Amino acid sequence: MHSLFKTIALVGRLNTPALGDPIARLAAMLEAGGIKVLVEQDIAQEHGIIEYQKVSRDHIGKLADLVVVLGGDGTMLSVARLLAPYRIPLVGINQGRLGFMTDIPLHEMEVTISNMIAGQFVPEERILLETTILRDGQPISTSLAFNDVVFSRGSIGSMIEFEIFVDNQFVYSQRSDGLVVSTPTGSTAYALASGGPILHPALPAITLVPICPQSLSNRPIVVSDNAQVAFLLTRGQGARVHFDNQSDFELHEMDRVMIRRYTNSLRILHPHGYSYYDMLRAKLRWGEKLL
Amino acid sequence: MHSLFKTIALVGRLNTPALGDPIARLAAMLEAGGIKVLVEQDIAQEHGIIEYQKVSRDHIGKLADLVVVLGGDGTMLSVARLLAPYRIPLVGINQGRLGFMTDIPLHEMEVTISNMIAGQFVPEERILLETTILRDGQPISTSLAFNDVVFSRGSIGSMIEFEIFVDNQFVYSQRSDGLVVSTPTGSTAYALASGGPILHPALPAITLVPICPQSLSNRPIVVSDNAQVAFLLTRGQGARVHFDNQSDFELHEMDRVMIRRYTNSLRILHPHGYSYYDMLRAKLRWGEKLL
Amino acid sequence: MHSLFKTIALVGRLNTPALGDPIARLAAMLEAGGIKVLVEQDIAQEHGIIEYQKVSRDHIGKLADLVVVLGGDGTMLSVARLLAPYRIPLVGINQGRLGFMTDIPLHEMEVTISNMIAGQFVPEERILLETTILRDGQPISTSLAFNDVVFSRGSIGSMIEFEIFVDNQFVYSQRSDGLVVSTPTGSTAYALASGGPILHPALPAITLVPICPQSLSNRPIVVSDNAQVAFLLTRGQGARVHFDNQSDFELHEMDRVMIRRYTNSLRILHPHGYSYYDMLRAKLRWGEKLL
Amino acid sequence: MHSLFKTIALVGRLNTPALGDPIARLAAMLEAGGIKVLVEQDIAQEHGIIEYQKVSRDHIGKLADLVVVLGGDGTMLSVARLLAPYRIPLVGINQGRLGFMTDIPLHEMEVTISNMIAGQFVPEERILLETTILRDGQPISTSLAFNDVVFSRGSIGSMIEFEIFVDNQFVYSQRSDGLVVSTPTGSTAYALASGGPILHPALPAITLVPICPQSLSNRPIVVSDNAQVAFLLTRGQGARVHFDNQSDFELHEMDRVMIRRYTNSLRILHPHGYSYYDMLRAKLRWGEKLL
Repeated sequence: MHSLFKTIALVGRLNTPALGDPIARLAAMLEAGGIKVLVEQDIAQEHGIIEYQKVSRDHIGKLADLVVVLGGDGTMLSVARLLAPYRIPLVGINQGRLGFMTDIPLHEMEVTISNMIAGQFVPEERILLETTILRDGQPISTSLAFNDVVFSRGSIGSMIEFEIFVDNQFVYSQRSDGLVVSTPTGSTAYALASGGPILHPALPAITLVPICPQSLSNRPIVVSDNAQVAFLLTRGQGARVHFDNQSDFELHEMDRVMIRRYTNSLRILHPHGYSYYDMLRAKLRWGEKLL
Repeated sequence: MHSLFKTIALVGRLNTPALGDPIARLAAMLEAGGIKVLVEQDIAQEHGIIEYQKVSRDHIGKLADLVVVLGGDGTMLSVARLLAPYRIPLVGINQGRLGFMTDIPLHEMEVTISNMIAGQFVPEERILLETTILRDGQPISTSLAFNDVVFSRGSIGSMIEFEIFVDNQFVYSQRSDGLVVSTPTGSTAYALASGGPILHPALPAITLVPICPQSLSNRPIVVSDNAQVAFLLTRGQGARVHFDNQSDFELHEMDRVMIRRYTNSLRILHPHGYSYYDMLRAKLRWGEKLL
Repeated sequence: MHSLFKTIALVGRLNTPALGDPIARLAAMLEAGGIKVLVEQDIAQEHGIIEYQKVSRDHIGKLADLVVVLGGDGTMLSVARLLAPYRIPLVGINQGRLGFMTDIPLHEMEVTISNMIAGQFVPEERILLETTILRDGQPISTSLAFNDVVFSRGSIGSMIEFEIFVDNQFVYSQRSDGLVVSTPTGSTAYALASGGPILHPALPAITLVPICPQSLSNRPIVVSDNAQVAFLLTRGQGARVHFDNQSDFELHEMDRVMIRRYTNSLRILHPHGYSYYDMLRAKLRWGEKLL
Repeated sequence: MHSLFKTIALVGRLNTPALGDPIARLAAMLEAGGIKVLVEQDIAQEHGIIEYQKVSRDHIGKLADLVVVLGGDGTMLSVARLLAPYRIPLVGINQGRLGFMTDIPLHEMEVTISNMIAGQFVPEERILLETTILRDGQPISTSLAFNDVVFSRGSIGSMIEFEIFVDNQFVYSQRSDGLVVSTPTGSTAYALASGGPILHPALPAITLVPICPQSLSNRPIVVSDNAQVAFLLTRGQGARVHFDNQSDFELHEMDRVMIRRYTNSLRILHPHGYSYYDMLRAKLRWGEKLL
């Protein structure tokens, strides 16, 4: 088996019995092809896979040349944030419904992966956001997000009030349920449900989408991904900031949250013939007439 | 002073020093006109008003023929729920910005109220919603709302999932940040920020407005105010239901929440010449060209 | 065959070869049941149907007790306007995709119609709009609409400007591509594409939906179906008013267009077990998860 | 007077008597500073300005180093398309309301222009779109647009149907009233009224905004300004394509319209202290609380 990648790590969604067999099959195929196979340790343990070197999530980035993710977009998000500091490409195999990022169906996995590691792939660079929370001017927390950084009100209180600055220029003060700051990748996730536009993944952009703003003239804005976005919470007990909806942090009033593009981008490999628009059409049912 | 109303109660927004003088003036004017004046006890205490009979919020409904509210729409909302079981009309005087319901400016208060109690008013009936929360089939809580009943996700978790039934007919299952069930009165409040239509106050209707629904084809629906709306929480730890954003209740999965029009409607009196559309235009700045 | 209806007229979409056989089958079934069958003359001629009494569109209303429409919502619209002056119920059979109003599939036609004429149906009253165009204060044209009255700009020029009055009260002046004035029936047609809410058919309401308004705070309004809506064209060469998108009329500046509920409503019969929400869910794909 | 520009042309909105005096004053000030002043011939004739060299619109590009536009955004649009082939910067002075591009108030004109020609300005590059209409595969017309290329249905018929391709990849087929293809400059014009996002002028992007699409899941998309957008009209008698809403062209079914970024971008000069967001906030009234 000809492969551009010497060491390939397999990562999967946890608590998913149906993934045991595909992971074993994929590992066997790769090893038979002379590739060194690493299996993420939690998934190895879940499925009793003992033939391959186990590796903790934190070490994948240092050891692998390529990571194959089996699961859905949620698994992809968490692996993306983990691998962002390294320059290792990702491939996504969907177990279940077609994902925005996990675009290879499980039943085509073997043929498609074989072709891809031999070089038949379409690479795509995607940005991440790096967020720093400042309290009293001091950084107290830093996080990465691949989809979005979401500011939201607490469960009880009323709307929050905040000010937005882009490149130190005042943009607006807003009273709303919150704000989505999204990468192109995240533009088809929560940002879309909030009324935001779809950004092509190659667009060097960040979008700011208000969530139920009180002022009817507030609209989504799209800015360059070179921009630095600052969020200042002026009012809103219990407000929180969420990263890819997988972790979150409670904010205090007058906390300032700085968001900018993360230094590294993430490389996703797609199979030959991949089209972003085909995927979009399938996910959003654009092909079909609704009315 | 000729008055259709023998006993008039004055209620005001609390913690608002600027209201002391207007309340005293209004009380004096009414008493001079031979009207019995009641002052809500908290507001009387706040401003040291001792010349008139004090009355607790809970007794206003039994004692007064008319209630004059000084404050904003928030004060109006809380008084409306309180008075709904009685058939006593309300008049709203805005202290601060023009309100959707508090439509008499403070500086015109004396002339306008004099005219209104002499019979020069436009009455308007407005519905309220009565909500019953059922857990394991048993009612555990009942609430009134004048604006809206809002279902929302908790502060941390992800979207909630629920099913909606109208008159026992299944309408849809939805995954979203929540749902606004609104009266015509509430249609210009949170429902509007969530993308709902404006309902004329006289329309016998209730509107259901999804909040950031995941499915892009979910849209606001307007149904008759004779309809019974049932909300079934199928998934969503920490979900809550809010009444006029002034009280709320935590829901458990499989709780069922029944919403219907409350038996009584509330009567609001407007000054002669009142136009709902004038007020709307002023509040939403429709008169002005934005672009 | 027991039937509540003695004379039933059959009407169908024209230029649709596939309808010849179903119409013949339905006519034969009804006649065999002792019902007098009328066939609309154009459709009779198209399919060479000569066994039954032919009737022109204009005479259906006087002769039939029930009209069965085979086709789609478009056919239903035109028949609805025609029958509105009479009080004759309609049944809709869809040839092709499920319609909002033509809710009986062709392959279930015989069983369903048999049951319905025997009394197993759910009746539904739906309103129509009557529009009068005034030029220099004089009525110059009157039209009925079952879905909507749509004001639109001409093909070349820019946006139009107009003023809206409801019950002689000024609502707003607007600069936009136009306005949809819609019945509940029409709320799932063009009004929905323009961002309007869905109105339950039983709601006694009319909705006004701006088309691409320049002011971002303009939103759909829902008013009582007792209201009289007046549209005054203040600027807009080439502006037109459309009725159910099946006929239209060119407007001049300062033309005034009066819209109110038509005296009669139209009765549509649905098969037992019919649910408006089931139909809506099927048409809008609410059952399915899109993301 | 120190000036970076030797020859400055003055252009103004026509049929605007109030512009006569400002143009004369500005011309005098510049000439007194040793700058060669050209005045566009139509405006010179309208105001009887004879002291300066007249120049036709078509020759401005070859003769001037800087063009000052007095009027509104509409005047700016037409001048922008005219100057795009040359690399001459523009300055916009608004006569009337603040414009998105004409950001210098008339009453500050003299001081601001003096400072700007001395070098105190903020330059901004803005893209234009070049459109080629292909009929039977042959180019039949080419146009520039600074705001947008808008596809619209004719005044009478129903919605149009078309297919969109980006970089030769099929994006979607759509049934709607039309489509706005907009530059960042145009994103605050018709695209915004149609529900599109606001694009920062520096974003290298083009947005595609559907106008009243029949399918509810169709949403605005933002793509790179390197992309080639192709529009294929599959159905729609009377459909037209409009350029900046200042010129238009009737399309035939199966016409293909190719849109790409024009080779040159346009340079707009803003006064020191200019902030795009300040202007946006002023124009959209974001500073004010609407509810």
